[in-house]
Parts: sequence; structure tokens; C-alpha cells
Amino acid sequence: MDSNKFWSDGVDAIQPYVPGEQPAIAGLVKLNTNENPFPPSPAALAAIRAATNEDLRLYPDPDSTRLRQAFAQAHGIAPEFVFAGNSSDEVLAHAFLGLLKHERPILFPDITYSFYPVYCRLYGIAFETVPLDAEFGLRVADYARPNGGVVLPNPNAPTGRALARAEIRQLLEANRDSVVLVDEAYVDFGAESAIPLVAEFPNLLVTHTLSKSRSLAGLRVGFAVGQPALLQALERVKGSFNSYPLDRLAIAGGTAALQDQAHFEHTRQQVIATREWLAAQLERLDFDVIPSQANFVFAAHASRAGAELLRQLRERRILVRHFATPRTEHFLRITIGTRAQCEQLVTALEELLAQP
Amino acid sequence: MDSNKFWSDGVDAIQPYVPGEQPAIAGLVKLNTNENPFPPSPAALAAIRAATNEDLRLYPDPDSTRLRQAFAQAHGIAPEFVFAGNSSDEVLAHAFLGLLKHERPILFPDITYSFYPVYCRLYGIAFETVPLDAEFGLRVADYARPNGGVVLPNPNAPTGRALARAEIRQLLEANRDSVVLVDEAYVDFGAESAIPLVAEFPNLLVTHTLSKSRSLAGLRVGFAVGQPALLQALERVKGSFNSYPLDRLAIAGGTAALQDQAHFEHTRQQVIATREWLAAQLERLDFDVIPSQANFVFAAHASRAGAELLRQLRERRILVRHFATPRTEHFLRITIGTRAQCEQLVTALEELLAQP
Repeated sequence: MDSNKFWSDGVDAIQPYVPGEQPAIAGLVKLNTNENPFPPSPAALAAIRAATNEDLRLYPDPDSTRLRQAFAQAHGIAPEFVFAGNSSDEVLAHAFLGLLKHERPILFPDITYSFYPVYCRLYGIAFETVPLDAEFGLRVADYARPNGGVVLPNPNAPTGRALARAEIRQLLEANRDSVVLVDEAYVDFGAESAIPLVAEFPNLLVTHTLSKSRSLAGLRVGFAVGQPALLQALERVKGSFNSYPLDRLAIAGGTAALQDQAHFEHTRQQVIATREWLAAQLERLDFDVIPSQANFVFAAHASRAGAELLRQLRERRILVRHFATPRTEHFLRITIGTRAQCEQLVTALEELLAQP
Repeated sequence: MDSNKFWSDGVDAIQPYVPGEQPAIAGLVKLNTNENPFPPSPAALAAIRAATNEDLRLYPDPDSTRLRQAFAQAHGIAPEFVFAGNSSDEVLAHAFLGLLKHERPILFPDITYSFYPVYCRLYGIAFETVPLDAEFGLRVADYARPNGGVVLPNPNAPTGRALARAEIRQLLEANRDSVVLVDEAYVDFGAESAIPLVAEFPNLLVTHTLSKSRSLAGLRVGFAVGQPALLQALERVKGSFNSYPLDRLAIAGGTAALQDQAHFEHTRQQVIATREWLAAQLERLDFDVIPSQANFVFAAHASRAGAELLRQLRERRILVRHFATPRTEHFLRITIGTRAQCEQLVTALEELLAQP
């Protein structure tokens, strides 16, 4: 829709993030939005049911105290180092506005979570992208230059490649005067978290979500970890935006999910094992598979175009994701489903690739 | 906490909104945050329980389609005229950023919802306040001057005074070149909604919430009603901030609550009747009670200071709210509780006022 004279200045120039589709079609093999194929913790569902009572007439705890405590306990840190929000996307938005808007441009990879430039345009934040290498590797030395902040997901999305904690440390040591935001949405599937570095680096912010490794994309719970002085900027933005972004049910369910480490361990290990199986199958089928530490793989076929495979898989009721930018157009991002779903995908690909 | 070199420019100057306290103390008579004393619709609780299943692993519908349809049906409008968000506070935030940031300052009353100036400071929006008259009345003629937008709650908060729809029409006719945002958080307790004017005025945005008249403050569901071209600005901001601000449970519960008109009618009529009873009792006790169409009353005692009464009521485990600004410091804002809670309040005031 075209601009309108009533819009604020600049709204016609912003381009919203486009999430993967959520079609209401039964029987789809949905490997397009990095959801977890396993159900949430039964304890989380029980806690939500218990909270579904007449207290819903009352506002939630604006500080999500129990939820923050549960996250802190699961990660061996103090609750004062934890900020909670309505998904890590909301937490990221507050971090961009509260910590990353400076005179110098912020830096992030040229291939990364495509929401980052969207936040920048929304809030008028200058940014520069830093090219990944030919195999989508991130060289931390490329970020050792004056900047208004550094943002990177670890593992990166949509590539799945992870940096070691020692590399994050190098990045922090080279950027002591600006905020380094490490978006760990996918960290639980095999990468090293930077959370242990927070006590040492006052400029480190780490974001997490319950959407992926806790199977709660439908509940909208995210976190930031950082020193209290850094989190205070997020608190100010949040308190100037929406005092209660987490409803009573999200607080209850998120808290219980974080306390169920057994379910978490069991399901994430299955995702990891299936990822390794799928990556081997895709290589067998002539895909170039980027080494992944996430709950998805990023893979390009030797001879078939990404957009074509996307379409052909969709005809077989299998959804994957494709990013039509020059460096990524050959690739598909495939979420790790159950083993049975991934077997369906492999069978479908075998059929497709057998056709000329 | 003091500023920090990592904060974005300007964050040290923003002052978050301070919500009414939510103490975790049992047995309080909580008349301080305008919550509804009646439970939510049983159908809403049943719908939430039904949605508490393994589908929580999946993202919600980013467009909250069912919820918007239910709101549209309840108000006799088309779903294309409805935007949904995580509480009306989030919807207001998006409206300030997307529709109210212009060269000219926006206008709102000097005594009104204290979140409005907070949004302005967060987003760098110029504003001017327009004094209410001595009895806290809003004169629409005062807004007939060049502006970047007009914002007012109807009924106003914390006064409870409402404008007739004919006065909102006058305001719209005098401001055809800027957005008029009517915040109807409390409209269901006796005021006339401006929603029927939306079809006629492309510059009218009306916001609603399920927190008050639907007894769902704990679920965080809010709406905006406006012509699609106006809502498109909110969609762009929302899509650049958080694609899924409403979780699956809020969508399910909010939809069912909007479909249960019988519960809504029954509970709101009780709130209205109790308000009229309480207002008469307060007048008997020498309070100046501003005529209210909301689920609260704003009242000043002839001889006792507001801050003192607040403190003395708190000692008796009764919470009310007090705003320490020059024009409001004599007043208490008292949420309409159950008849029994309001009787407790009246008894406590009778005791307090009998003491010298």
C-alpha cells in the first residue's frame, strides 16, 4: 500500500521483516521456520493450565521475576543479569534502540538474520555489513575497527555456522568501547554460549529465546543477559514502551519449561542427531552443506536452483525456506524436523533429483 | 542507575512509565490499577486450556486473524479495520512512532494517561499539553489549531470524564489534516465509542483493550481501529519490531472473550452500578467526585490530603492510586471493585475521617 499523508515521516521507507509462512494447512511437513519438532515440556503445559484461572483479570508481574530467576538458575548466573521480553525479537528491538544507536554505524555480517537491518531502518540506526568469507565463515578480525556496535548470531542464521567462545572473546577484546550483541537463538543445538563472558565484559549482551530449544515458539518468551548497567538501558526502553510484555501464561509456562532440564536435554540431543543424519544424506544427494550447530542446515545443490527446489518441495507439501539474495539464492534453509519428517524430505529430494 | 557509555544517545533522558504496584500480598483490596473485579469469561479460560497443547511449539498466526475477526464482529465492522497488538500500550507505542511523529507537536490534555509523554520522549516526538478546565473538562475547541496529531482517552484517565461522540466528531472536523487518536481503554463502562466514525474519517484511530471490560489484564491484548491505509503504518512498525506479539494463548483466550457478550454485559453493568453507588457514598463523605464513565472514580476530599489518605488506606490493606502532580495531588483514583470491596473502602474511609 502506498504512503499516506497521515503516516509519520519515514514510515513509507521502512520494510518490515517477512517471517516464514505459517499456513493453516494440515499435513504439511513444515521445515521453514526453525520450530522444534518436539512438543514443549509437559511441565510447561501443566503450569499454563494451572495459571488459566480468574487471576487473568490482574496485570502480570511487570518484572517477570520468577521467569528471570528460572533462566538465571538454568544458566548459573544471578537474576540481576537477566532481562525478559516478548520473544527475543522484542528484546533485540529494545537493544537496537537502547544500545546500538550511536554516531558510528553498527556492524553485522552481510548474510545473517534479516531482521537486523529492519530494526536499523525502524530506528534510524546507521549500519554497515561485513562480508562473510566464501564458505560463510565469520572472521572476527574483520570487526576490529571503529563502530557503534557489533551484532552477530551464534550460530549464525541462516548458515548455521558457529564461532567458538574464544573467538567471541577476541571480538570483545577488540571492541571494548562498543556493545557486542551475540544473538544465541540457536546456541543450544551445539555452539558455545558467551554467557560465561558476561561477568568480564561490560559491553557484552547475549540474547536467548524459548522458541527453538524449548519448543515454545507459540508462547513468545525471550531474554537478554548482560551486566545490570547495560540491562538498565533495555529496562528504560521497555518501561517506555509496554510495562507488561509477558502475559501471565507466558511467565508461568516459560518458568516451568526452564526448570525441566531433562526434557530439554532429551529433545535437543535428538535434534542434533537428526541434523547430522540429514546433513550426511544431503551430501550424498550432491548438496554443499554448510557445517551447522543450529536446528537447521543451509545447503545448495550442485546443479538445481534453490527457488526451483523450494517450489517442487512445496508441491509435495514440504515447506523449506529460501532467501533470494545473490549470495544465498542457491541455498535452502531446512529446519531439522523429526527423523520421520527428514526422511520424507530426503525421499522427496531423491525423487525430484532423479527427474531430468 | 546513572548513564553508561554503552547506552544509545538519549536513553539517559527517557523516563519510563511507572505502572501501579502489583504486590504479591494476599488479602489486599486492590483498587489501584483499574483491573476488573470479576473473573474473565469462562469461555475464554476454556479456550486457553484447549490451546495449551503441543502446538505451542509452533509460531502463532502473525496476523491474529481469528482475534481480529472476533473484535470486528463484536463491533460490527470489517476485520480490515482492526489491528491487534500485545496490549493497547503496545498498540499506542506503534501509533506514536508510526502516525504521530511529525514536524508539528502533537497535542494531548495536561491531565491524562501519563504514558503519552513517555512515548514522545522515547521516540523524539514533539508535544504540547492542553489544559483541561477547572473541573477537568476537555474543551474540543482548544484543539482547533495546527498540530501533528491529537491524542485523548475517552473517557479520560485518571479523571473518568467522557466526551460525547458529537464532540469527537467536532474534534475530527477541526483536525482533518492530522491523526486523532481516541484511546477507548475504558469506553465500555458508559461512554460512546468513536468506532462508528471511522468509516467517515480517514484520520481517526481508536484503540481498545481487553484488560478492563473483558477482565483480561493478565493476557495482554489490545486493538486499534482505523481505515486500512492508517493501519498500514501500524503494520509496518509492528512488522519491523516483532512479527508475533500475541502468543497462541492470548489469541485463543481473547477471541473467546470477545465472543461471550453475555458475560461482558453482565459484568460491566455490575461495575457501572457499583461506581454509581461508590460515587454517592464518597460525596456523602465530603469528597468532590468527578463524574465518571470509567471503571474508576477520581475524588478529592474537602479537607484531607490525597497522599495522606493513600497512606492511611494502605495501612488498612486497601490500595488506591495517587498522582503527585500540582493539579491532581488532592485526588485519589479509585478502581471500582466488587460491591463488597467498595463497602470495605467506604468503611475504612468513615473510620479515617472520624479521626481528627
